[in-house]
Amino acid sequence: MTKQIRVAVAGASGRMGREVVKMVIDEADFELAAASARSTGPVDAGTFVGKPVSGVTFSSTLEEALDSGPVDVVVDFSVPQVVYDHAVAAITRGVRPVIGATGLSPEQIEELDRLCKERGIGGLIAPNFSIGAILMMQFAAQASKYFPHLEIIEYHGDQKLDAPSGTSIKTAELISQVRGELRQGNPDEEETIEGSRGGYYNGFRIHSVRLPGVFAQQEVVFGAFGQSLKIRHDSYDRAGYMPGVAVAVRKVMTYEGMIYGFEHIMD
Amino acid sequence: MTKQIRVAVAGASGRMGREVVKMVIDEADFELAAASARSTGPVDAGTFVGKPVSGVTFSSTLEEALDSGPVDVVVDFSVPQVVYDHAVAAITRGVRPVIGATGLSPEQIEELDRLCKERGIGGLIAPNFSIGAILMMQFAAQASKYFPHLEIIEYHGDQKLDAPSGTSIKTAELISQVRGELRQGNPDEEETIEGSRGGYYNGFRIHSVRLPGVFAQQEVVFGAFGQSLKIRHDSYDRAGYMPGVAVAVRKVMTYEGMIYGFEHIMD
Amino acid sequence: MTKQIRVAVAGASGRMGREVVKMVIDEADFELAAASARSTGPVDAGTFVGKPVSGVTFSSTLEEALDSGPVDVVVDFSVPQVVYDHAVAAITRGVRPVIGATGLSPEQIEELDRLCKERGIGGLIAPNFSIGAILMMQFAAQASKYFPHLEIIEYHGDQKLDAPSGTSIKTAELISQVRGELRQGNPDEEETIEGSRGGYYNGFRIHSVRLPGVFAQQEVVFGAFGQSLKIRHDSYDRAGYMPGVAVAVRKVMTYEGMIYGFEHIMD
Amino acid sequence: MTKQIRVAVAGASGRMGREVVKMVIDEADFELAAASARSTGPVDAGTFVGKPVSGVTFSSTLEEALDSGPVDVVVDFSVPQVVYDHAVAAITRGVRPVIGATGLSPEQIEELDRLCKERGIGGLIAPNFSIGAILMMQFAAQASKYFPHLEIIEYHGDQKLDAPSGTSIKTAELISQVRGELRQGNPDEEETIEGSRGGYYNGFRIHSVRLPGVFAQQEVVFGAFGQSLKIRHDSYDRAGYMPGVAVAVRKVMTYEGMIYGFEHIMD
Repeated sequence: MTKQIRVAVAGASGRMGREVVKMVIDEADFELAAASARSTGPVDAGTFVGKPVSGVTFSSTLEEALDSGPVDVVVDFSVPQVVYDHAVAAITRGVRPVIGATGLSPEQIEELDRLCKERGIGGLIAPNFSIGAILMMQFAAQASKYFPHLEIIEYHGDQKLDAPSGTSIKTAELISQVRGELRQGNPDEEETIEGSRGGYYNGFRIHSVRLPGVFAQQEVVFGAFGQSLKIRHDSYDRAGYMPGVAVAVRKVMTYEGMIYGFEHIMD
Repeated sequence: MTKQIRVAVAGASGRMGREVVKMVIDEADFELAAASARSTGPVDAGTFVGKPVSGVTFSSTLEEALDSGPVDVVVDFSVPQVVYDHAVAAITRGVRPVIGATGLSPEQIEELDRLCKERGIGGLIAPNFSIGAILMMQFAAQASKYFPHLEIIEYHGDQKLDAPSGTSIKTAELISQVRGELRQGNPDEEETIEGSRGGYYNGFRIHSVRLPGVFAQQEVVFGAFGQSLKIRHDSYDRAGYMPGVAVAVRKVMTYEGMIYGFEHIMD
Repeated sequence: MTKQIRVAVAGASGRMGREVVKMVIDEADFELAAASARSTGPVDAGTFVGKPVSGVTFSSTLEEALDSGPVDVVVDFSVPQVVYDHAVAAITRGVRPVIGATGLSPEQIEELDRLCKERGIGGLIAPNFSIGAILMMQFAAQASKYFPHLEIIEYHGDQKLDAPSGTSIKTAELISQVRGELRQGNPDEEETIEGSRGGYYNGFRIHSVRLPGVFAQQEVVFGAFGQSLKIRHDSYDRAGYMPGVAVAVRKVMTYEGMIYGFEHIMD
Repeated sequence: MTKQIRVAVAGASGRMGREVVKMVIDEADFELAAASARSTGPVDAGTFVGKPVSGVTFSSTLEEALDSGPVDVVVDFSVPQVVYDHAVAAITRGVRPVIGATGLSPEQIEELDRLCKERGIGGLIAPNFSIGAILMMQFAAQASKYFPHLEIIEYHGDQKLDAPSGTSIKTAELISQVRGELRQGNPDEEETIEGSRGGYYNGFRIHSVRLPGVFAQQEVVFGAFGQSLKIRHDSYDRAGYMPGVAVAVRKVMTYEGMIYGFEHIMD
């Protein structure tokens, strides 16, 4: 029998945390080892997410959770402000962090990498665990070598505060690295309704659609004489990220140092 | 045998004019009766468009063309500045005008209506002869009664000067007539890249994509809890307007007065 | 203050029943009056669906539920076999049935209509409460008058047993009523892989895609020279039907007799 | 000044041949050196395609065309039956063949490779010169490693004789090479309309839509829990292949031996 990976979940009562708890319970090669949740009190993690009793009671801090027994990996989708301290606490205890967050500084990432190597363990920081979204970004960047004329259209729920989305900006960055200089469109173009041509990024445009009922969708459209190419990713559900998190938990057991970006652990 | 409709074509050497000449030659119940083209010289209209010799030689003015023999209907896709004079010249001669143009004033349309009725003939002015585009607009307006959250995304060639497109503005107007007041989106929304949320029209947004290889496309997307509805029209070719022009030529023989808008002669 | 509508839910522990209970609790002008569930025991309906205590305890039969206090409307998404008896029981008690089911015979519908009229109350039987799906079907039928060349592509989850979907067949029927005779495609067409051209229905084709992660989607594509028109409806969630059910509950209070088809109560 | 590449066009009066002639005339680094067309008589190639007089008169055979002066590359979109003999005639004369055809046997390709190497020149045989279609196929194959549940939907004009399309079968082959064994769908699935589930290929399905106005489109749809990925290529026009042909003409000058498949000369 393969040894099971003992997984702790930080922020387990949050929207992502709950999905992680469910996934850890469901995956045969994972064992839920500990879970932290600031304000729920000491309830059972399984019951809390609508699963059978798990035997793991929420601790009020991550440190407490990690000290409650042996842990191999901690999955952390907490708010950016606490993620760094969580990661230090984990690595210090020999626990591999799998972190879903943006906003860590390069210096912080470097320091976490140093700490990981010191302890001889792996770690992962990823702004995005969606395999589909990552493929979309990679394909879009690759296509832009041959089809430099493109626009990005992204769709999110109508209560989202910021536009354009983080994923669309990341996509635009990846495209810009390979596409070369090109300012698309007619230089004499005029907007009779301001903003209709979308947001300008490095020669091309990003359009942000906000509608109720949408979770997260993005389409990159390439146009050339006589043809068009479209790459579209639709996310319907937070749970769609979990297969990526599961891959990360397994992978982080196999290397040393902190890796940034899920794409670097895909085969 | 049904009597054939004798059709004259104004501006027959222009991009739309050429398509009209081809269509008139191809339709069994139409007869090419006359054609005008300012600067081609007296060449044969059929040969000019890559068809067999038609026996109709280009006149340099529309008046000359209309006086060259009996004509039932004249199709005119000339520039807006000359369209009104063309229409007066036609109606005066008892010829029904089918006009593809925007920009006529309400007073001009009223006067043409008066002239048509005086002569007991019909006429049509239509900014759009695309049956598919008109259905898209009608369906979008109807859907907005039930799904008030929507955005419009329109695609045109990358050399188009104005944004958003005339069709998208027309669609937005039709929607606004039935949708009621609603300002979509989060009131605290912020654009980190200016313009990314598109052009604001009466509570919703219009996005204009410009890419090479695109002729004219538009999608209206409706979002609601748990579902979305999309209505999309793609135009690949100027020739796609011709079935609508043919319908108009036949219809204009059957009524009196000037009608504005192709949708009003659809069954 | 408007009087509230007192709503009972049949089969309240089923997948659709649970959504109905949630909706009834959430809508301000509805009051949850009773609920039946065969095998849950006498638990609180609110608690059961993850809402606050509702004060309504599940009855084990619908009759019992309807006799527990005054009820205006009963919503029933039970299996077809019991729906008819449920409806008779409801109407007999002066309760208006809103039924989400297929499979009732014309004779049964006629009899229920007679009973409704006898009692002076309304009733609704609808195979589909999705406003978006109904609009899609109506638009598709209307478009087929102008664009007789079309194909239907429908998408459902990969464990669905039957193909094509009920909605796609209903769409095909509605289209056939207005489209006239036309056998599309090349008469000498050959399939090198059997079935690749899809299912044949009255001159056109239906394609059924089955993939994990899909709930219910359908696209009707129309093709003509130089243009295409697409009407697409995507359903992500059972809860997307609830706005339609809420409309039905309100409407059924306003007429007499049994109506078949949600489209007939849309404005 | 860069030396121009002298290009001959075989079958220059055919639909693809005409596009090739136009492209060769338009590209600054190409020179139209010769052209063959069986049945046009000795007319000027430029005039024939609607361009200015080119000074190149159609020869009635390719051999005659190749012997009329120095030629670097011959582009050949002739029917499969004559392509092999054309290629031998070209290579023997030291002219690099760029061939757009399917149907050559492995032995023929091997022999042409041997001849090319003997003469120290390059050659290319490609069933598809559409860069967009090739990217779509490559992306689809790559995505199927992570998303093994997929279906292919391809769209062509309604007079196409065979289904599914060559491109969709090629895509299915490429996917099958990396996807591993998986029979999708519910094993107890039933078709109430035969063929609605599409054509079966190695565990997944191909759907062929045939509509007027469509040139060539294909979409590969991947489904997984909570997400979907779509890769779509739309071809509107034969001329959309010409950028790929131009790339091939330049590339074939730079290597020795016969290469099969445009993807192998993409960077």
